[in-house]
Amino acid sequence: MNVFESYESNVRSYSRSYPVVFHKAKNAMLYTDDGKPYIDFLMGAGALNYGHNNDYIKSRLLTYMEEDYIMQGLDMFTVAKSEFITAFNDHLLKPLGLPYKFQFCGPTGTNAVEAALKLARNYTGRSNIISFMGGYHGLSQGSLAITSNEYHRKAAGIGLHNVTFIPYESNKPNDTDSLAYLSMILEDTHSGIEKPAAVILETVQAEGGVNVASPQWLRALKTICEQHDILFICDDIQIGCGRSGDFFSFQRAEITPDIVVLSKSLSGYGLPMAMLLIRPDLDIWQPGEHNGTFRGYQLAFAGGKAALEFRRSTDLDIAVKRKSAYIRSFLGKLAAIDERIHIRGLGMMWGIDFSAFEDKLLAKKIAKKCFEDQLIIECVGREDRVLKLLPALTIEEEVLDEALDVIRKSVVQCVSTTGKVVSHQA
Amino acid sequence: MNVFESYESNVRSYSRSYPVVFHKAKNAMLYTDDGKPYIDFLMGAGALNYGHNNDYIKSRLLTYMEEDYIMQGLDMFTVAKSEFITAFNDHLLKPLGLPYKFQFCGPTGTNAVEAALKLARNYTGRSNIISFMGGYHGLSQGSLAITSNEYHRKAAGIGLHNVTFIPYESNKPNDTDSLAYLSMILEDTHSGIEKPAAVILETVQAEGGVNVASPQWLRALKTICEQHDILFICDDIQIGCGRSGDFFSFQRAEITPDIVVLSKSLSGYGLPMAMLLIRPDLDIWQPGEHNGTFRGYQLAFAGGKAALEFRRSTDLDIAVKRKSAYIRSFLGKLAAIDERIHIRGLGMMWGIDFSAFEDKLLAKKIAKKCFEDQLIIECVGREDRVLKLLPALTIEEEVLDEALDVIRKSVVQCVSTTGKVVSHQA
Amino acid sequence: MNVFESYESNVRSYSRSYPVVFHKAKNAMLYTDDGKPYIDFLMGAGALNYGHNNDYIKSRLLTYMEEDYIMQGLDMFTVAKSEFITAFNDHLLKPLGLPYKFQFCGPTGTNAVEAALKLARNYTGRSNIISFMGGYHGLSQGSLAITSNEYHRKAAGIGLHNVTFIPYESNKPNDTDSLAYLSMILEDTHSGIEKPAAVILETVQAEGGVNVASPQWLRALKTICEQHDILFICDDIQIGCGRSGDFFSFQRAEITPDIVVLSKSLSGYGLPMAMLLIRPDLDIWQPGEHNGTFRGYQLAFAGGKAALEFRRSTDLDIAVKRKSAYIRSFLGKLAAIDERIHIRGLGMMWGIDFSAFEDKLLAKKIAKKCFEDQLIIECVGREDRVLKLLPALTIEEEVLDEALDVIRKSVVQCVSTTGKVVSHQA
Amino acid sequence: MNVFESYESNVRSYSRSYPVVFHKAKNAMLYTDDGKPYIDFLMGAGALNYGHNNDYIKSRLLTYMEEDYIMQGLDMFTVAKSEFITAFNDHLLKPLGLPYKFQFCGPTGTNAVEAALKLARNYTGRSNIISFMGGYHGLSQGSLAITSNEYHRKAAGIGLHNVTFIPYESNKPNDTDSLAYLSMILEDTHSGIEKPAAVILETVQAEGGVNVASPQWLRALKTICEQHDILFICDDIQIGCGRSGDFFSFQRAEITPDIVVLSKSLSGYGLPMAMLLIRPDLDIWQPGEHNGTFRGYQLAFAGGKAALEFRRSTDLDIAVKRKSAYIRSFLGKLAAIDERIHIRGLGMMWGIDFSAFEDKLLAKKIAKKCFEDQLIIECVGREDRVLKLLPALTIEEEVLDEALDVIRKSVVQCVSTTGKVVSHQA
Repeated sequence: MNVFESYESNVRSYSRSYPVVFHKAKNAMLYTDDGKPYIDFLMGAGALNYGHNNDYIKSRLLTYMEEDYIMQGLDMFTVAKSEFITAFNDHLLKPLGLPYKFQFCGPTGTNAVEAALKLARNYTGRSNIISFMGGYHGLSQGSLAITSNEYHRKAAGIGLHNVTFIPYESNKPNDTDSLAYLSMILEDTHSGIEKPAAVILETVQAEGGVNVASPQWLRALKTICEQHDILFICDDIQIGCGRSGDFFSFQRAEITPDIVVLSKSLSGYGLPMAMLLIRPDLDIWQPGEHNGTFRGYQLAFAGGKAALEFRRSTDLDIAVKRKSAYIRSFLGKLAAIDERIHIRGLGMMWGIDFSAFEDKLLAKKIAKKCFEDQLIIECVGREDRVLKLLPALTIEEEVLDEALDVIRKSVVQCVSTTGKVVSHQA
Repeated sequence: MNVFESYESNVRSYSRSYPVVFHKAKNAMLYTDDGKPYIDFLMGAGALNYGHNNDYIKSRLLTYMEEDYIMQGLDMFTVAKSEFITAFNDHLLKPLGLPYKFQFCGPTGTNAVEAALKLARNYTGRSNIISFMGGYHGLSQGSLAITSNEYHRKAAGIGLHNVTFIPYESNKPNDTDSLAYLSMILEDTHSGIEKPAAVILETVQAEGGVNVASPQWLRALKTICEQHDILFICDDIQIGCGRSGDFFSFQRAEITPDIVVLSKSLSGYGLPMAMLLIRPDLDIWQPGEHNGTFRGYQLAFAGGKAALEFRRSTDLDIAVKRKSAYIRSFLGKLAAIDERIHIRGLGMMWGIDFSAFEDKLLAKKIAKKCFEDQLIIECVGREDRVLKLLPALTIEEEVLDEALDVIRKSVVQCVSTTGKVVSHQA
Repeated sequence: MNVFESYESNVRSYSRSYPVVFHKAKNAMLYTDDGKPYIDFLMGAGALNYGHNNDYIKSRLLTYMEEDYIMQGLDMFTVAKSEFITAFNDHLLKPLGLPYKFQFCGPTGTNAVEAALKLARNYTGRSNIISFMGGYHGLSQGSLAITSNEYHRKAAGIGLHNVTFIPYESNKPNDTDSLAYLSMILEDTHSGIEKPAAVILETVQAEGGVNVASPQWLRALKTICEQHDILFICDDIQIGCGRSGDFFSFQRAEITPDIVVLSKSLSGYGLPMAMLLIRPDLDIWQPGEHNGTFRGYQLAFAGGKAALEFRRSTDLDIAVKRKSAYIRSFLGKLAAIDERIHIRGLGMMWGIDFSAFEDKLLAKKIAKKCFEDQLIIECVGREDRVLKLLPALTIEEEVLDEALDVIRKSVVQCVSTTGKVVSHQA
Repeated sequence: MNVFESYESNVRSYSRSYPVVFHKAKNAMLYTDDGKPYIDFLMGAGALNYGHNNDYIKSRLLTYMEEDYIMQGLDMFTVAKSEFITAFNDHLLKPLGLPYKFQFCGPTGTNAVEAALKLARNYTGRSNIISFMGGYHGLSQGSLAITSNEYHRKAAGIGLHNVTFIPYESNKPNDTDSLAYLSMILEDTHSGIEKPAAVILETVQAEGGVNVASPQWLRALKTICEQHDILFICDDIQIGCGRSGDFFSFQRAEITPDIVVLSKSLSGYGLPMAMLLIRPDLDIWQPGEHNGTFRGYQLAFAGGKAALEFRRSTDLDIAVKRKSAYIRSFLGKLAAIDERIHIRGLGMMWGIDFSAFEDKLLAKKIAKKCFEDQLIIECVGREDRVLKLLPALTIEEEVLDEALDVIRKSVVQCVSTTGKVVSHQA
């Protein structure tokens, strides 16, 4: 650890919450350099939906490397990319009737968001973007401009423009009707707000505090976009790739975004990868207008294809829905402990919101207690007051049970110590 | 190929110049799906300095994966990261007397540039950045603002501010003394130009046309920065990692940048990876102010360590210098064919400049001819009039010879067809 | 008129509504070149509160010029400026207990707004400004950025940043509670909205459609500003100088703005003049940081002093309140004609809102009819659907009666022609 | 003076150099409240070319006011405006063959500059403006963005964008060939600089230090603009209206700007007034897109017309050329005193540059000495090291002599005290 303290920049963050050195990992578990196991409810911030070092995908990647298939191909044609596109079409787009084109970007979510914003601006000839309070889309300058967290925004060192923030549907600080507000600013000639190129959102705000938009709200938002000729960009970086229960998070709302942003678990194995799905008529890109060296990381294509095969062969969506119901049931009971505990979530992303408690650090204390009990879990949302459960979709049920038990014990202990009202059932 | 034409975005570019489907790769060679070999003088745009699928690094990566070491660790402490930092210190920083701290960023060059700009702006409290005409630093919004190519800038869809461009030392379109100009704008109270947080540059502009800054010019620029309390950021993404002959491109100028940006060949195997080296007192980052899911791609740390071992064990710098002299000698002879051919470069990055010819497409025609002769090579610089030679540092000498021969034949054929003056020696 | 059509820019606007050539003017009346009289309910858009060519002020101005007192003095000390400051203190600031310092700006409202924004930004070190939908603050770039009308904003030709618009109290397009919304965005760490330097507003939005803020709302807004250390800037350019019934429009709310912006009727005679009143501790200006050639137009100082004397000697505030009640009573009866007619206003600024009618051009038709009957009156607000009554504060009562009669007839005629529901009393 | 110290903002500047209270003024003379006379070489910063309280213009203005002609007419048609346009056409535009349209703006130079920038941006659809180091165009946000002085720029409180500064022809801090540089950045696809909507400049930079562009340079600049379809905006606010010897400063270069900006002495009597002259095909304004209450200050139209009559009736241009030669001759002798004295200027604007002296305050000391000897004169340029002579065009020759004598004595005294080299002729 001395190496990190001496040489790694102060910018490191997770290592402050989990001050151990990790070495190995398998499915839902992390192991430190001295072999101590931890259950992982952070899962690479959503990049490891299929578990650490998923065996099915691993075998395909090892073969790929052993055979000396091309690793790095820029945006040249390769067999791996062809196979990935074909698999993605066959497993997902065709069955869902989605006609998207693929744009492979620099292999990070923020890079794909940057590409989406450029495309929306160039297609519409407009500059402004509607983004939502609580939304997180990345920290490169274009993405940061549409990310709402002031802690990150202040780090820009310059003004961040060409964005208008409006409240999200849920977990917003007052009771504004966001869509009425949006319609108003679009229709009022004196709103002062430039007609936007696009609306961008996560259908479940992850870093923002696990705020779930309802299907009706998403559909109404899509309708407003259509009425005003504004593009609808779905940032499915964290809530996509099966996390919500379906592969795409927007399936539950039965809408078709104009642009979908994917990254994180796309490669299936934690390999950096990102892409856009684009409504074909929007694809007005000129060759190379947006590029990036690692947009052709071939091992990720191989992983992505294997992940889709794994999903299908294991009926992963069904397993996720079963586990989701199990977690929901557990959290329902947990919320009964104290009326100030609020739960939110869907699929395999859940939040336990402690912001109704006076103690601002309560969620952090609980997360710290969990870590002491060998569960890796993080806090998100305003002032980090929401405990976020982000297990592997593939977590074994007994491991899930064990983790939930750690959470239950930590909550009970910290709430009883901190909270004045212990239970509305007592 | 039909898959790509139907489903991949129009933004793809290299595949237009090299319309074949690649499958395998080894050291300097690429192989198509039907086994046709190509010599690669593009090398993942500089991401593959150690060759395709370098056996030494490969064996380490396979072991890493087979043992289920952690693949994706966000910015948590891991054994792989610790070993990488230690190796980088031992192989490079300590011998060179460089005291940097490490910041691991989202694994792309542009992301690391974004981080460097934020840090410089926050450290100095200033907004403006001095960048150079011909410079290329990436295409996310912050990096794009300091990238000079209008083709890319126009794709932003919004205004790009907080940058002042000045001419580079060489290959600039007029004879302005750049550093005198820079001193002037810094000292004149009526220059209208805000004092910058930093100067950022490539010591050899790669995409800009293989423009090589002299050591004296680099030192004078560094001195100006020191006099005015402006940070000096060296973008060593493409010219670093051994490409220039040394590991860091600034070694030949005997200067110590305040921030160094590294990516591309850092992982040694084409795996996405990027980092900043930061003068320790600049490291005023708050935890998590800049982040990114894939800043902890552990396989890249393992690759990066292996690459440093490979460098040392094979005396790679010595080999590069020998091959560099060989290429230089070859190009000297090539330039003698026609006085309008100009050559530039150092280490294993060379440019053959055809912009003195009337035919604007000459370089492209030559590159096309090379491709027909199974050599992958690209054109860069203003109007793509410079043929850029970017072979693997590890290229076998006979393969290098073969490639140079292809170039020679293509140049002779295309120049004799196109050019009116064939040779000043004839 | 041929001269104007041939040589004056298309940017001219009022001359399109009133296509006659004016020559003379006295108090509430305008006279064309052929002597045709018009009652003026536009009054130089609020620059002529004391009537055209007010005799008291006129005599002082003629004397000033005849005696060859200095006309143009930049910001040098002059007797005229000294006397103006003294009179303004004695007549207004001291009796009201207001301790402001005076900043004389370029002699237009927009210039004074620009100065106020600079001062607020420099004092707080922040960039953002909160402005209100429907607000109008001028058309130079800084003022335009905080002016909400999209017609004017589009003419900027560039992006307008560093502003956040929120709904005004009244006449806003939906029922958002503006102050709750404002508190929310100030307090939410994920609102994405930078803490502002200042809030700027008109207490009655004039061009925005004669929207009147209530005293309670103004007080609550002032309290929010104090809680968050945000400056409160009152743009009293049009509603100030006695128009609201008091000299300052904020008197009715019993608040003390941090900065007050005055122009239009300040000189009393239509002479260009503008100034800021500044809370003394905010006055961190360095010499000459904001300047302008005509900030020392001395004839305006002489006019401004005479206007204050005229106000006092004629008990103008009392007369205004009497006439205000008279107009209010008249408009009450007018509104009874049709339930879709809405009236708003206070002092001597009133609006008749026809936006509940289907016919979008109704207000314009009425204004046109008024012009035919020799009354100059304009339409303001969203889509110009509000008829704005802006008579001279000094209008003779019989002339006022005559004008109101013209309005009544025009409304009756146009509504009966256009509207389907004629009267809810019929 | 107590009034000002207690109540006027710290932003006041000229009153710090001339701490007396002025009361009356006539032609070249100012008189304090206790009757002390001063010769005025500042002349309202160029707003009083025809002298203080010019009797010819005065009589017209008094008549205008006495007859109750309209004073404030917004942009309605008036007799006064019609007569001004006709006179301007007859006296100036027609004889010079200039086909401009007139746009009357808010009555300040900065407002007219703002209008010119909007028009140029909207006409071309581009955002960027080329402005010159040393240039001064006003301090509202749009104008400030193109004004080079960092003292003023820092007061903006926000970033100032959409401008590229390049060196002026003369008195620039290094020997860059500005026009070669401009051509380069326009032609280089990698200059990073957006193609501009317009170039804006003063043909003689006044506040920048009396820097005179040569006719050849102006013509070459105009040619570059034509080649690249960039508008040429001449800011003739200070150097126009006869100051240069001709009415328009660009006449000496035999060029026709696309847009001309006029203000300051336009009204002839120090009355606020500003306008644009626009190439007719550029006049794409929509009604009211740019406006301002005081764009119809009718007394200024009357003054402007009278000023043109005065010019013609007194053969003012001829007088100016004679006095110009006289001043030039005087300054030639003055410069002979010490080789470090440099003179620049034309018409009736001259600068004595002391920046070659070690003593940075020398020019200020000389100005202070002049003031003690009852001459009002200011310092301009980088670090205020240039004494600027800006007498009334109508100054009596004996008064001019007296003033020049004061200058000579002050220079001799201060240089002999300060300077080490007193004279190269001694």
